[in-house]
Amino acid sequence: MAIGLFDSGLGGLTVMKELMRALPEEKFFYLADTAGSPYGHKSPDWIIERTLRSIDFLLQQKVDLIVIACFTASIYAQEIAQKKTPIPVIGMISPLFTESISTQKSVVLLGTRNTIQSGILQRLLVEKHPAIDLLSIPCPLFVPFIEEGWSDHPSLFLVADRYLAPAKEKEVLLLACTHYPLISSVIQRSLPQTQIINGTNWVAKKVQSLLPERARQSGPPSFYVTTDQARFQTLATSFLGISIPQVSCVELVV
Amino acid sequence: MAIGLFDSGLGGLTVMKELMRALPEEKFFYLADTAGSPYGHKSPDWIIERTLRSIDFLLQQKVDLIVIACFTASIYAQEIAQKKTPIPVIGMISPLFTESISTQKSVVLLGTRNTIQSGILQRLLVEKHPAIDLLSIPCPLFVPFIEEGWSDHPSLFLVADRYLAPAKEKEVLLLACTHYPLISSVIQRSLPQTQIINGTNWVAKKVQSLLPERARQSGPPSFYVTTDQARFQTLATSFLGISIPQVSCVELVV
Repeated sequence: MAIGLFDSGLGGLTVMKELMRALPEEKFFYLADTAGSPYGHKSPDWIIERTLRSIDFLLQQKVDLIVIACFTASIYAQEIAQKKTPIPVIGMISPLFTESISTQKSVVLLGTRNTIQSGILQRLLVEKHPAIDLLSIPCPLFVPFIEEGWSDHPSLFLVADRYLAPAKEKEVLLLACTHYPLISSVIQRSLPQTQIINGTNWVAKKVQSLLPERARQSGPPSFYVTTDQARFQTLATSFLGISIPQVSCVELVV
Repeated sequence: MAIGLFDSGLGGLTVMKELMRALPEEKFFYLADTAGSPYGHKSPDWIIERTLRSIDFLLQQKVDLIVIACFTASIYAQEIAQKKTPIPVIGMISPLFTESISTQKSVVLLGTRNTIQSGILQRLLVEKHPAIDLLSIPCPLFVPFIEEGWSDHPSLFLVADRYLAPAKEKEVLLLACTHYPLISSVIQRSLPQTQIINGTNWVAKKVQSLLPERARQSGPPSFYVTTDQARFQTLATSFLGISIPQVSCVELVV
């Protein structure tokens, strides 16, 4: 099977890493809409349009299943994208995400401004865990830092300390942005006592459940961006720890 | 006269402040395309489209002159916007900018990734000052910090130190982004010996020269954004030091 993933940049690679581990013999296509990055504070209409264009591009690559590897795009565009697409379109928002909390706990939720302001994850969490003590924090500077490749710079430690200061007493922290696992050590440094739950882990299970007969399709993953392929190539190689001989720059058309 | 300004966010306010000082009796309309921010690494086509939509909106407000108060948008869209627009459209790129350097000097140019990669300002500077010793540094994290309202946070000091480390020996620093004057004290902190030249200063002169008969149009400035008016209102009030009772959220249409 061929699996297509899309994100605004590097974040979706955390999802792809999980999928490649669970499904090592499938073929992957990864599209990073670097020209549209970051998505976290854009208008819903804009996010829907970019998502639909990205899905069209992946369909042209003849994928069998698409993962919207971005919480912000999943929140605004997954439902409408699924209606317009003849193959499964998996988003990051799922009840499975809220099941990652096993008992009533004090929880802090981190995401982009859009993800937090939408309130969707908060509603899911409260439905599942009515007695939850929940704090939500938008962290708009995290994605620009990650996309700049500064995931371990001391300036980012200070940014994390400032965002996370109100979360000192929380037991559990949920990462509701696919970029954030790339800086989980920095987040852990600011909150050493807190258990970090990565919101991307369950996607591999869901994809596996949707691939009943897995016709293996060989070949290394293919990578596409919408601007600046050299920078993506350097950062993605470092993060995935695999050789990425080629990244193609494409234009998203309506 | 009514003067329209447009930028991706807060940066254009540095231009508006200059204009309000020079032309205190004119009426100003300011549009911040906050939903499209930041512009610094977007594709040229995208920047052109957002610029043309923004200009259409300002024309509907019946302005007599438009300032593209953003270097990135000026580089890609000013010429095409002027061709399509019946009133003057002033951009930030002008030979006047290069005249701000009086003699041959060692110079560092700061801008967004797009502004630096375009090479346009570098060419203008070398044409005017053939013996110039010129270093260019893209600083993509500066705009996200300014738009987050963290213009004096210690994390930004470390970010500035890292970007500016190669510029220690330079005599003159040119700010080729209308956002950067908002953090000029942070930049000066990293380079205490360097003279900072603000690339926005000359615009007021140019606008004055284009307003031969100034029919005064009274009224306080009007502000528009494309998302999140509350945050813009807070930050813009603090920066301009005037009361901003209302910010309207508008949608840019083709």
